[in-house]
Amino acid sequence: MNENAIAVALVHHPVLNRLGETSTTAITSMDVHDFARTCAFYDVTPVYLVHPAEGMHAMVHDICDYWLNGAGGKRNPGRREVLSRIRVLHRLEDAQDDASYKLWYTSAAPPQQALQDVETLHTEPGPHLIVFGTGSGLDAAKLPPENGWLRPIEGIGKVRHLSVRAALAIYLDRCRRGDS
Amino acid sequence: MNENAIAVALVHHPVLNRLGETSTTAITSMDVHDFARTCAFYDVTPVYLVHPAEGMHAMVHDICDYWLNGAGGKRNPGRREVLSRIRVLHRLEDAQDDASYKLWYTSAAPPQQALQDVETLHTEPGPHLIVFGTGSGLDAAKLPPENGWLRPIEGIGKVRHLSVRAALAIYLDRCRRGDS
Repeated sequence: MNENAIAVALVHHPVLNRLGETSTTAITSMDVHDFARTCAFYDVTPVYLVHPAEGMHAMVHDICDYWLNGAGGKRNPGRREVLSRIRVLHRLEDAQDDASYKLWYTSAAPPQQALQDVETLHTEPGPHLIVFGTGSGLDAAKLPPENGWLRPIEGIGKVRHLSVRAALAIYLDRCRRGDS
Repeated sequence: MNENAIAVALVHHPVLNRLGETSTTAITSMDVHDFARTCAFYDVTPVYLVHPAEGMHAMVHDICDYWLNGAGGKRNPGRREVLSRIRVLHRLEDAQDDASYKLWYTSAAPPQQALQDVETLHTEPGPHLIVFGTGSGLDAAKLPPENGWLRPIEGIGKVRHLSVRAALAIYLDRCRRGDS
């Protein structure tokens, strides 16, 4: 692995619900496909989907198997390339079995002032893991200590939250442009 | 309307299928929400969803009604703000009833060489309508004449196509940064 390599994780537990309580969300097939496709476009790998439940792992394996080994990949080889980067983990900590990742957490309202610009992430020694939360965001108190938080994407409208799919796309685009 | 205002359209007909034939796709609830949310974040309005079928219009109206007038908006007023910008049209041409839009078409492989950078779109007199296609892209021969094509987003991976949701997010982020 390139020492400045960037990987991505999408956490479904532990995340916060609307009330600020620790909770768990379901993995959606849309996120499997959109995360994998955006990461493939920017040559980012792996894409970790974090969920504690075996049933959710089985669902992801079934989706990926259809495209990697089944009829889907014969019809659309591009999607085989895309989905080959998906990994499922029970806990975010397990990603460290693959590489000594620095963990960069994301939030629309990060809890601290010293923020990392994604545009210059490639100038830091890595490998880096950019971590996104579902629900109402990462439950950082129950996750492993982060290396830092990325600066949030700022909008100009009244609405302060992007979908996690849009946030991923914008971060990777800025990251890539910072690197060019 | 501000003379440099930017609006967005997502076309479901006429678009191309894998074989390059004229075809029609279904409106998905995910695209309604993701397009509206990303546009709200960047203060872009309206968001036109173009589809010839009345049943698809009814579906979009039902989704929006739940959030604008029903129980959804009481629980989540932010989503009311988001979905208030959705409009459904039978034909892309009908957008001209709202404003004299310049039409900017998007494609991963645009048919011409003179391309508009989205970063400088705000320096051109508008109003502007950025037009995205579903399926295998816009069937430009059956759409009204465009003012121009936007320069495609370039990746660095083997995969050449982003989801339309990711492309929207990246274009609006670049547009906003070009404007700041």
